[in-house]
Amino acid sequence: MITFVQILDFIGTFAFAISGIRLASAKHFDWFGAYVVGLATAIGGGTLRDLLLNVTPAWMENPIYLICTALALVWVILFGKLLIHMHNTFFIFDSIGLSLFTVVGVGKSIALGYPFWVAIIMGSITGAAGGVIRDVFINEIPLIFRKEIYAVACVIGGLIYFGCDLIGLDSYICQILGGSSVFITRILAVKYRICLPTLKGIE
Amino acid sequence: MITFVQILDFIGTFAFAISGIRLASAKHFDWFGAYVVGLATAIGGGTLRDLLLNVTPAWMENPIYLICTALALVWVILFGKLLIHMHNTFFIFDSIGLSLFTVVGVGKSIALGYPFWVAIIMGSITGAAGGVIRDVFINEIPLIFRKEIYAVACVIGGLIYFGCDLIGLDSYICQILGGSSVFITRILAVKYRICLPTLKGIE
Amino acid sequence: MITFVQILDFIGTFAFAISGIRLASAKHFDWFGAYVVGLATAIGGGTLRDLLLNVTPAWMENPIYLICTALALVWVILFGKLLIHMHNTFFIFDSIGLSLFTVVGVGKSIALGYPFWVAIIMGSITGAAGGVIRDVFINEIPLIFRKEIYAVACVIGGLIYFGCDLIGLDSYICQILGGSSVFITRILAVKYRICLPTLKGIE
Repeated sequence: MITFVQILDFIGTFAFAISGIRLASAKHFDWFGAYVVGLATAIGGGTLRDLLLNVTPAWMENPIYLICTALALVWVILFGKLLIHMHNTFFIFDSIGLSLFTVVGVGKSIALGYPFWVAIIMGSITGAAGGVIRDVFINEIPLIFRKEIYAVACVIGGLIYFGCDLIGLDSYICQILGGSSVFITRILAVKYRICLPTLKGIE
Repeated sequence: MITFVQILDFIGTFAFAISGIRLASAKHFDWFGAYVVGLATAIGGGTLRDLLLNVTPAWMENPIYLICTALALVWVILFGKLLIHMHNTFFIFDSIGLSLFTVVGVGKSIALGYPFWVAIIMGSITGAAGGVIRDVFINEIPLIFRKEIYAVACVIGGLIYFGCDLIGLDSYICQILGGSSVFITRILAVKYRICLPTLKGIE
Repeated sequence: MITFVQILDFIGTFAFAISGIRLASAKHFDWFGAYVVGLATAIGGGTLRDLLLNVTPAWMENPIYLICTALALVWVILFGKLLIHMHNTFFIFDSIGLSLFTVVGVGKSIALGYPFWVAIIMGSITGAAGGVIRDVFINEIPLIFRKEIYAVACVIGGLIYFGCDLIGLDSYICQILGGSSVFITRILAVKYRICLPTLKGIE
């Protein structure tokens, strides 16, 4: 039986893969290159987290992430032109992925007994590091370092997750509240164009 | 006693290191930088694979890869100008490396009990990820994402290796057939300029 | 009680973080991006080393590196303009970091029973890989591959550390002599503008 979380996981993976394939496409990558960039965007964060936590990355135990990225590639090849008109849908899907991945990263770290600062960093890595690897592959400065609130939403969600855990709430509640915080922060940040201050060049 | 596989391993490592040193040279890196890029090209794929498989990277147990890269650097410093006339030789050497490294990656994963999709990805990572790290270091878009059949040859070889393993062929035979597939695919792809389709920019 | 080594560690981490934040600032990163680049510069080398040695990265056990990077960010936000006049101070701080981190990397590898070539590479990775990650994040060719003696100072220090260990000197003495070699090599290299030869472009 497929659970609700698995559906969210699939939507999030699909949206992350699409974001990688789309940028690869803008740089005229071939199908293989686009697949690799899509895959790195979708599973790169979780893989880095699992290397740091010294556990086996999820995609090495379940091929669903590889299949989902393949479907994303086929989708872009067939319906790529529709993407322009589906901006809002994919923004919502991407935010779902960001929220879920963050919660998974925080939860996994807490379950392994790591302190809260590790859990929050792992949540942020799970949510945002895939996008950084994507941008390194397409040879651009990582977007999340310059524009909008993105990984900061992961940090906020991670803090709220940890706070809920600390006051003894059920882990199910912690996940819902933590994930919702990421989602709402991200939506509000884009809707009201909330940005962090930029450092003035000092060199 | 030196085995045939060790000779192939040395040739492949040398060719991969040369490819890194050569591109570093085109960007006016100093000797140290060229050595690091050559080393990353030669051992980067295997190191990433071993981190993911949670085993100790081969170069931490045997200094041959470091020595081989040092010889490649000396060779380029002394005879670098000859490289232009040795294009075909190095193309063959590089293809030998690609084939052997793929087979080693696939075999190691199967021996550790991983499923076939992990084995094929690990074979491709062993063969092709060093070149991606090289291109990140010299600040270029990874070549294998845009041009020619390269990592796809690893995927094909990995599939054939796994297929042979599945029908119960001796592991020695699997290695020969898998490696030959990589080699032949790569040679044919370059000879007949076979490319994957490119995604049209959609942004 | 705070030890002398902890003070050096703090100074080195602060200097490394500042170097990352400063370059991020030149590229107009926001506060979050600058923090991530500063953190990657400060802890990236040690983290890569610990992944390769298969031990838990230090920052996952002690939040001091995260705090130190946060202080560096606040410092740059408040007093960034002073950095231009503090060039020499930060050069000394950075060299302290390079020396200490190298010694820590070499010592950790020897303690884990690795051979000398692994220890020297781990020392160099601890000292210099953070700067490479920083330069990848800001999308520039890594500085240490092209300019001045930097990682080579780590290699020299590592060799001297290992030589001292080999002739049976106390590990305390090995650390002091190894670290001083890195420091002196780095200072002399910058003072007398000693560079490695550059490879002539051959393509």
